[in-house]
Amino acid sequence: MRFIAIDWGTTNCRAYALDGGTHSIPDGGILSLSRDDYPPILQHIRESLGDPQAHLPILISGMAGSNRGWIEAPYVPCPASVAQIAAAAIAVPGQRNVFIASGVRSAPDQAADVMRGEETQIFGHAQATGFFCLPGTHTKWAVQRDGRIIEFATTMSGEMFHLLREHSILKTSMPAQDAQDQDAFLAGVAASKNGTFLRSVFSVRARSLLDGLGADHAFSYLSGLVIGEDVREGFALFAERDPILIGAEPLCVLYGRAITAYGGRSTKARDDAVLRGAEIILRHLQQQGRVI
Amino acid sequence: MRFIAIDWGTTNCRAYALDGGTHSIPDGGILSLSRDDYPPILQHIRESLGDPQAHLPILISGMAGSNRGWIEAPYVPCPASVAQIAAAAIAVPGQRNVFIASGVRSAPDQAADVMRGEETQIFGHAQATGFFCLPGTHTKWAVQRDGRIIEFATTMSGEMFHLLREHSILKTSMPAQDAQDQDAFLAGVAASKNGTFLRSVFSVRARSLLDGLGADHAFSYLSGLVIGEDVREGFALFAERDPILIGAEPLCVLYGRAITAYGGRSTKARDDAVLRGAEIILRHLQQQGRVI
Repeated sequence: MRFIAIDWGTTNCRAYALDGGTHSIPDGGILSLSRDDYPPILQHIRESLGDPQAHLPILISGMAGSNRGWIEAPYVPCPASVAQIAAAAIAVPGQRNVFIASGVRSAPDQAADVMRGEETQIFGHAQATGFFCLPGTHTKWAVQRDGRIIEFATTMSGEMFHLLREHSILKTSMPAQDAQDQDAFLAGVAASKNGTFLRSVFSVRARSLLDGLGADHAFSYLSGLVIGEDVREGFALFAERDPILIGAEPLCVLYGRAITAYGGRSTKARDDAVLRGAEIILRHLQQQGRVI
Repeated sequence: MRFIAIDWGTTNCRAYALDGGTHSIPDGGILSLSRDDYPPILQHIRESLGDPQAHLPILISGMAGSNRGWIEAPYVPCPASVAQIAAAAIAVPGQRNVFIASGVRSAPDQAADVMRGEETQIFGHAQATGFFCLPGTHTKWAVQRDGRIIEFATTMSGEMFHLLREHSILKTSMPAQDAQDQDAFLAGVAASKNGTFLRSVFSVRARSLLDGLGADHAFSYLSGLVIGEDVREGFALFAERDPILIGAEPLCVLYGRAITAYGGRSTKARDDAVLRGAEIILRHLQQQGRVI
């Protein structure tokens, strides 16, 4: 089956074709769009990926299915299988074979949490059992067993780093551009083990004042503090140590170092998780007779 | 001895006289001022507090003594006594009997940290030994033994709440005005005991989406999460449980509730801590022959 997969998020929209073609929409995140914007963008994506006649089925995952997106798709509660995700997918009215994947929500007896888009990537890894970490603005830690996402947690890690860097008193300690000081990063990870996050982040300022901590060092140290805290929480929440990382390479490298410092062992998932996840969901839709 | 005490901070400037008179300077924080602004403000304060002829000695504490303030005063390292704070105070050139209190910094073998102004309030409590919590934008937790501040930690609690409320994805879940839902606050404190701060703050959004958490409830729950995390860290750092609270009444009430939920017992310091601390420091300056 040939098809197109679209990861349509809050700030980005990226489409993938089976032949390796990809197409990104500048400012294509759902926060920049109104409902009427979606159909022409979809046609533009088809044309960019060699499907001007709209023959190929499309699977859209991510925030396009949220209440601020195109059409709201439900959340499947944990434990959530790919068959359930496919069954709950919404067929977009007026479009042939265009589906919006459902998200996943926590079970009623679990702490409230939601995901949209990450489920597609987790299923795309095509491994029935595993502990997953999808680092980002809102990092997901998820446990899959026998083909079902049984529990997961969202941490405000990437956004926290952004808040501290751009809006807090630490702003004056930060460099104009991103820095990569590996020793400082690992020192931040080590400090995160104290489990005193509010104290540790202020220490960046104290160290700038007292120890003359340089801006590049402060940036990497803060990055290590936040990512280290994220790993500490992920490990504490699930008592797992060997996550499969899904995400952009540079961020996964940093998470890999922090996971090692916490005594874990990470592996990197294949890069085409969105495409493979969409394929699996579309196959289920085909079996359910919904792809025509 | 009659005198004037001034708590001159980053965003506020408030002066106190022995007869109970107080005077606040609108926009008087150091971030709004250049060096030339200080002398006329000082004269204005004297006139407002009945000392137009500049007879009374003045003790200034707080960020006015920082490198962004009027005149930089040193930091006395822990363990810091009031006699050392007085000895390191800076006499303002061109002013008679006007002193800027020194701050306190961590000892070389302690994690880097600084305070300016809180030392005056701690000494103002006039108790040689105690565990102190001064909640605020950057909360201070401090241990005093035998008249010396032996160790302390700063946590980015008040600023963290502001960042999350004003600049994060949680902004859309927050009410226009501050809320006071005591049950929601205590639920947030209880959740902070998990020790997974990055996860817990995201849960406010997840609960808004899934459980229909109202804005007032979300505000108070987030407040409980941040203050609870602060108390968790303060207790973990110092293995103390019975802090003396110094600060504004409404915030101290919230901290008192969180401290109780963590099994501690708080007491509220007298309200005139700035004035009493300045008096004690000025007495030492008098004994040192520096008040003329």
